[in-house]
Amino acid sequence: MIVALAGGVGAARFLEGLVQVIPQKDLTVIGNVGDDTEVCGLHVSPDLDIIAYTLAGIVDPLKGWGIRNDTFVCQRSLQKYGYETWFNLGDKDLATHIYRTQQLRKGLCLSQVTAQILKRLRLRIRLLPVTDDEFQTHIVTSGRKIHFQEYMVKLQTRPHVERIVFNGSKKARPAKGVLRSIQQANGIIICPSNPIVSIGAILKIPQIRAALCTTKSKIVAVSPIVGGKTIKGPADKLMKSIGVEVNAIGVARIYRDFLDTLVLDQVDRNLAKNIESLGMKAVVAGTIMRRLTDKIRLARIVVRELE
Amino acid sequence: MIVALAGGVGAARFLEGLVQVIPQKDLTVIGNVGDDTEVCGLHVSPDLDIIAYTLAGIVDPLKGWGIRNDTFVCQRSLQKYGYETWFNLGDKDLATHIYRTQQLRKGLCLSQVTAQILKRLRLRIRLLPVTDDEFQTHIVTSGRKIHFQEYMVKLQTRPHVERIVFNGSKKARPAKGVLRSIQQANGIIICPSNPIVSIGAILKIPQIRAALCTTKSKIVAVSPIVGGKTIKGPADKLMKSIGVEVNAIGVARIYRDFLDTLVLDQVDRNLAKNIESLGMKAVVAGTIMRRLTDKIRLARIVVRELE
Repeated sequence: MIVALAGGVGAARFLEGLVQVIPQKDLTVIGNVGDDTEVCGLHVSPDLDIIAYTLAGIVDPLKGWGIRNDTFVCQRSLQKYGYETWFNLGDKDLATHIYRTQQLRKGLCLSQVTAQILKRLRLRIRLLPVTDDEFQTHIVTSGRKIHFQEYMVKLQTRPHVERIVFNGSKKARPAKGVLRSIQQANGIIICPSNPIVSIGAILKIPQIRAALCTTKSKIVAVSPIVGGKTIKGPADKLMKSIGVEVNAIGVARIYRDFLDTLVLDQVDRNLAKNIESLGMKAVVAGTIMRRLTDKIRLARIVVRELE
Repeated sequence: MIVALAGGVGAARFLEGLVQVIPQKDLTVIGNVGDDTEVCGLHVSPDLDIIAYTLAGIVDPLKGWGIRNDTFVCQRSLQKYGYETWFNLGDKDLATHIYRTQQLRKGLCLSQVTAQILKRLRLRIRLLPVTDDEFQTHIVTSGRKIHFQEYMVKLQTRPHVERIVFNGSKKARPAKGVLRSIQQANGIIICPSNPIVSIGAILKIPQIRAALCTTKSKIVAVSPIVGGKTIKGPADKLMKSIGVEVNAIGVARIYRDFLDTLVLDQVDRNLAKNIESLGMKAVVAGTIMRRLTDKIRLARIVVRELE
């Protein structure tokens, strides 16, 4: 069993390759829920959906989130009721949120509902939200605390980030199966996701970091920072804001206490030595995932490191 | 102030004419909520929506419910999550249900949310759900109790009706403003709606029938039964099932204890004498509403009787 810690778009792209290399049923993905929020009274789980939609082959390939060929008829009508509509709700996508919300209101927990959604999408991987408890990532900017989605989607990551707050992180317990999957894994992958908010939020759940530090299985991460920049999302800005070096070394430092191997892009090969001096192996590879063949090649390199 | 007791499509068509005869702000509509139900976890109020959409000019003119030119993209995706989809949820229409559900969950009552929806639709009438409490119309068929919408929409009124049950009718209180509007009205109209389930459900709320019996204002009903049949809906079947004569006389009997005037269709003019022998005035008129001019003509006749 392979375990992957995952954020959104970057992780999903990597996982697309991974499921070509190992069988779906051998993969457990631990997903970030810090980005979860309520939109129009509906519970949305952006990162879980991105992963499910991508692996089900229905994701919008250009945006990397949402469903391919979706329409936005309901959203335009929601606008008439005074809703802000910066968080896009496609008509097809909306069905997932309506379903999830109803199941949660019936008393199911997020991990149960997520399992049902995966079943409906005919996926055979296990996708575990890191916690079933209340947990949200917020950004403090100009003294105001806003939800990460507002910072990311509404404000397009423009505000200066003073602080990142993980609401509920002290009380949140890992969802059922999360700790055991880490303890019993034959290998653990940290996907090329934002190390501060996506993977960072997962690591904020008490016991997760401890489980990673004590597991016997190898842990391999793929750096999401290439040539000092992120491929997608605000990881670079957030790393800078909290005073972390914006390169693969910065990533290595964040994961230092549990990481065995960091896969970094070939443009950053000059950083390999410094990374290895932190007490981990550095593997230089092509990490830019444009086509499926890129994704599979990268997944193969990572899986090889787990052995 | 004119008060109208209303069901769905028949009432909405009549009210379209009425608002051409009296100013919107002088009209209070008391709407049926017995048809309300949860669909995919969303609170739907079919009769309230039909009235609001019709008066806002956005109703689907062929069906008489739902929104014109609506699409059904979300519904097709909901089907993939295992939902039955006999209750149509258009993408535009869905926005109303999402909004209503969220506002109700925030703690507002149905009459407050309905007022907000009307404001958004720029309507100036007052539309009061007869009650803000739990109240649902059920049909007993073959010993099984099903929601009225299931009988009407899913089963297309095919099952034999053994009994009609108004769930919650004993505890439900009239919504704020309902009793006072009846007591202070300058005239009360019973729209051409189903006397058993639509108007019947309204009359089941304790105190409503008493308020109608004691109000000083005139009460005029339009018979929804023309030539022994309903124009729309299962009123004829339901009247038969509870042993009421399926014609304007049957309608007159149901409203007998408070009605001043019954407007019946010209094809039923031979029933006028029998109706008057029940102690009310019978007015023969064209009650079939095909075009707006038909609706206005009928509304004028009704309003004249209120004076």
